[in-house]
Amino acid sequence: MTAQEAITSYVGAFVDELARAGVKHVVISPGSRSTPMAMLMASHPEWRAWVLVDERSAAFFALGMAKARREPVALLCTSGTAAANYFPAVVEACHARVPLIVLTADRPHELRDVGAPQAIDQIGLYGSYVKWFVEMALPENSPSMLQYVRTVAGRAAAVALDSPSGPVHLNFPFREPFIPSLDKPKVDAAAREGERPYVQVKRGTRRLGQPEVARLARILRRAERGLIVCGPMDDDCFPQAVVRLAQRIQFPVLADPLSQLRSGTHDKTLVIDGYDSFLRHPGVAARLQPDVVIRFGAMPVSKAFFLYMQEHTKCRYVVVDDSEGWREPTLLASDVIYADPVHLCEELVKKWNECEYASRNTWTDEWIELNRITQEEILRQVSSSGLFEGRVFPELVDCLPDQALLFAGNSMPVRDMDTFFMNNRKNVRTMGNRGASGIDGVVSTALGAGVDGPPLVLVIGDLSFYHDLNGLLAAKLYQLNATVVVLNNDGGGIFSFLPQAEHRKHFEMLFGTPVGLDFRHAVDMYGGTFRRVNDWEAFRAEVKTSLSKSGLTVIEVPTDREENAAKHRAIWQAVSHKIRAWQEEGGSCASR
Amino acid sequence: MTAQEAITSYVGAFVDELARAGVKHVVISPGSRSTPMAMLMASHPEWRAWVLVDERSAAFFALGMAKARREPVALLCTSGTAAANYFPAVVEACHARVPLIVLTADRPHELRDVGAPQAIDQIGLYGSYVKWFVEMALPENSPSMLQYVRTVAGRAAAVALDSPSGPVHLNFPFREPFIPSLDKPKVDAAAREGERPYVQVKRGTRRLGQPEVARLARILRRAERGLIVCGPMDDDCFPQAVVRLAQRIQFPVLADPLSQLRSGTHDKTLVIDGYDSFLRHPGVAARLQPDVVIRFGAMPVSKAFFLYMQEHTKCRYVVVDDSEGWREPTLLASDVIYADPVHLCEELVKKWNECEYASRNTWTDEWIELNRITQEEILRQVSSSGLFEGRVFPELVDCLPDQALLFAGNSMPVRDMDTFFMNNRKNVRTMGNRGASGIDGVVSTALGAGVDGPPLVLVIGDLSFYHDLNGLLAAKLYQLNATVVVLNNDGGGIFSFLPQAEHRKHFEMLFGTPVGLDFRHAVDMYGGTFRRVNDWEAFRAEVKTSLSKSGLTVIEVPTDREENAAKHRAIWQAVSHKIRAWQEEGGSCASR
Repeated sequence: MTAQEAITSYVGAFVDELARAGVKHVVISPGSRSTPMAMLMASHPEWRAWVLVDERSAAFFALGMAKARREPVALLCTSGTAAANYFPAVVEACHARVPLIVLTADRPHELRDVGAPQAIDQIGLYGSYVKWFVEMALPENSPSMLQYVRTVAGRAAAVALDSPSGPVHLNFPFREPFIPSLDKPKVDAAAREGERPYVQVKRGTRRLGQPEVARLARILRRAERGLIVCGPMDDDCFPQAVVRLAQRIQFPVLADPLSQLRSGTHDKTLVIDGYDSFLRHPGVAARLQPDVVIRFGAMPVSKAFFLYMQEHTKCRYVVVDDSEGWREPTLLASDVIYADPVHLCEELVKKWNECEYASRNTWTDEWIELNRITQEEILRQVSSSGLFEGRVFPELVDCLPDQALLFAGNSMPVRDMDTFFMNNRKNVRTMGNRGASGIDGVVSTALGAGVDGPPLVLVIGDLSFYHDLNGLLAAKLYQLNATVVVLNNDGGGIFSFLPQAEHRKHFEMLFGTPVGLDFRHAVDMYGGTFRRVNDWEAFRAEVKTSLSKSGLTVIEVPTDREENAAKHRAIWQAVSHKIRAWQEEGGSCASR
Repeated sequence: MTAQEAITSYVGAFVDELARAGVKHVVISPGSRSTPMAMLMASHPEWRAWVLVDERSAAFFALGMAKARREPVALLCTSGTAAANYFPAVVEACHARVPLIVLTADRPHELRDVGAPQAIDQIGLYGSYVKWFVEMALPENSPSMLQYVRTVAGRAAAVALDSPSGPVHLNFPFREPFIPSLDKPKVDAAAREGERPYVQVKRGTRRLGQPEVARLARILRRAERGLIVCGPMDDDCFPQAVVRLAQRIQFPVLADPLSQLRSGTHDKTLVIDGYDSFLRHPGVAARLQPDVVIRFGAMPVSKAFFLYMQEHTKCRYVVVDDSEGWREPTLLASDVIYADPVHLCEELVKKWNECEYASRNTWTDEWIELNRITQEEILRQVSSSGLFEGRVFPELVDCLPDQALLFAGNSMPVRDMDTFFMNNRKNVRTMGNRGASGIDGVVSTALGAGVDGPPLVLVIGDLSFYHDLNGLLAAKLYQLNATVVVLNNDGGGIFSFLPQAEHRKHFEMLFGTPVGLDFRHAVDMYGGTFRRVNDWEAFRAEVKTSLSKSGLTVIEVPTDREENAAKHRAIWQAVSHKIRAWQEEGGSCASR
């Protein structure tokens, strides 16, 4: 039995088994030590291999694919700092609960920690950020070792996907020679018959017992001023389920822009999309005193919501999570429920059906009315504005086709999405990197998410775009279709909203950080189309052109950081004025 | 005592104390949580703050500065994936023994692991790759806490620098408000008088006892076929010390291109720079059977040397290291000595002076003659070659000013430097990232190393250049002077030397990985000058022009991967021919 036969059977079985477990995409960064895995994946008919040189971008690209597909995607790199470059995406995958299977090639034991090149300590490299780490055995092709490697493959896919989804890391020591035999790669060694996986792993979902559901239903039924809050969430079935619950119990639904509730064909009568603006009005936040809040998904993006909760510390605050995380930074939760949100909504509706229907109350009416005033005023303000960053989202809603993927970068874009991306009936899936909310890796994540999917539009700030310019290589190499809207205010726009902005002496150097880059050059290098627009007509025209053709288009919207902050403040102020006028006309439920 | 006063005194004392400990450069990536540290550093007269947006490039930039200065450099970033982006440079700093002080801002305890944005688990984030990790206390300005923060600052600088130098990580939880008082920043709270550090840390060097030195001297004296080998090393005093030892004991000195022995004004009679070529000749490697080898520095770059050692497993193989690492991947060391190399060389010379001088023997003559034949043939071959990658180094040696910093990228450039960068009398300091030998972060490391130093020339391959294109922002923002030579063979040139190259089917996709980028665009974006040369005359002219002016110049040498591999092989073959001819003329010591 030669070394080549051993490596071929062992790695071939692993590659075959991962495919049987449903993992079919791998993002490979070139290297020598990873050769056996790379060649066997590239030769396997079920695998699709994407090759990207920069491991940091490669990992975010895989993250995007895994997010969009809701299935594990594999990553493969050679030994050394290559693996360390995956770290930011691994951290994001952990916090955003995205299934990734990180495969790193490593030197065998005898070449570790002895000064060999590209040899670093890869044992537990990603610390607590992976759900599972395995230091794999050296390739052998005995029956038991093939059973082992197939079991690990099936288990890795299952663990990565199981709730909460996340990254797993398998470290493979390989000895030379690295070239597998491709003539008869024996990928079926120790395989089950046909397409069957070696081991089927079925994953149950968490369901609350009936007495607990009944108890929760009673809490909700007793509520006089109840709220449903939906944070970032990406479960196809959830919007319908939660809207049905809301209709039954007649609670307003505060819907984060990443909750998937603001788009789609479901009824939006109760879907409140303007709370980030009207809860900034101090009078409103104080008056709208909830007695029960039930929250689904991750923590909403809105800081105004966070502060609103902090103002009402005595309400019953129920947080539902499908697994044992703790996504509750207000520290005000009174109840935490680990259960599948869709199933829980359905069960609550069932419990409700057994008794009386709830009827609309003044509390809910007030939320709806405040939201209507806010929506109207924001649209009015926005429609008269010049190149103001927030306007990008209402403009996009008009331009997007019925099916689209709208990805918002971190820092300002996702906040602007919160304020300005309003209820609509298109099938727009929204996405962002809200696990650790970094500005890194956003270009790659979006491009990965857009692969084979509906038209992709990414809205991103200039610093975040710069941070992951390398990510554009994927668009060039794989002729990906993407529309990237760069809000270019030449620096860190969010800092103009913070107290740091008052300290002129150090502000531009430490926070404003203008980089003065003309991205046209970079976009040209990556074979994309670059357009800088100076008005909204041009913006709309360019977005439409981009969406109707293939390839990468980058549309730059040049803005000014100070003007932008001022315009945001003016809009929130205008909303406040409208609300005050409405209140003075007796519009609010003055009795409370 | 307000929160602002506490943060100002505590962080101010830390910043002040690091400066007293000799740390005066910080590379800051913008963020909100790190505001107190950033503003106090920017306001302190002793600190120089460099602000770079991409934390990965920022960290490598700091690494380069720390390498060139041989002193700790600080890094500062906000919480979240920002810190994860430092990981590749932290790993390289660990393996390359470069002192870095990584300062990460963090959320306070109550905002950790509860789903707050940009909050990740930063405790022990870099695992075993840092020498010291400290979770800092929250800011307080009691006398004891100011003593604490000053002690930690002094200790961090000392630990980072102490042999083996390496990165340390201090994690600072900060609560809002973040803005320190800059009117009277109280940086002298709890400080020692004048410029004195709070605690002076003096670091002794390891010195072997006299009986052990005598024992080693006896081993060397008894040797009939002894060798000194110098790997990557960057101690100013070492070249003189080891050359003096070599002259005394008349051993040939195999000098890695990063050993600092090939350049400089010291005597090079015994300095062998062509071994990577002539040890490839199987007859030579087998015949040149050493009985004692004493090796200093890290493991040499040369694979031919590695294989040569493996052919002679019975020799006494003494490895000298200044600290308790283990940089010996052949696994053949018979003796490991932890001691300061310069001092050890000096002590050995003293011991030798007490007895007879060694006289040149035929063994040493043979090495010198083989080296001469190799040098001559390589130069002959190179001078008649077209745009062949190896020729860059001999051409550069001619063009460089007397003082220069020559940085070689990983993969092929550093190997070409080994083969083609020959003994010269200029004061060229050579550098590379040979800790983990990754292709990442090379642009930033070189630019950091070049700050305020002698003229910098970086030789880098196209994939490595692409990997850290973001690093060029530093050159633009800080008007750095640099000459970057990009060997553009459109892909991973090193793979054409490996067995993978024979597998045409997958080769280009998995290993060749052409990216097809015209870097002119990127260089234009970063405000540099881009020149593509098509012959050596143009190359020389562009290098000279670049060295005589300020700013960034990127000189691209377009080459072909297959031709390049073929030319390398032809040169090694030509060297073999010359050696064989010489041997046939009775040139070698045939008696052994």
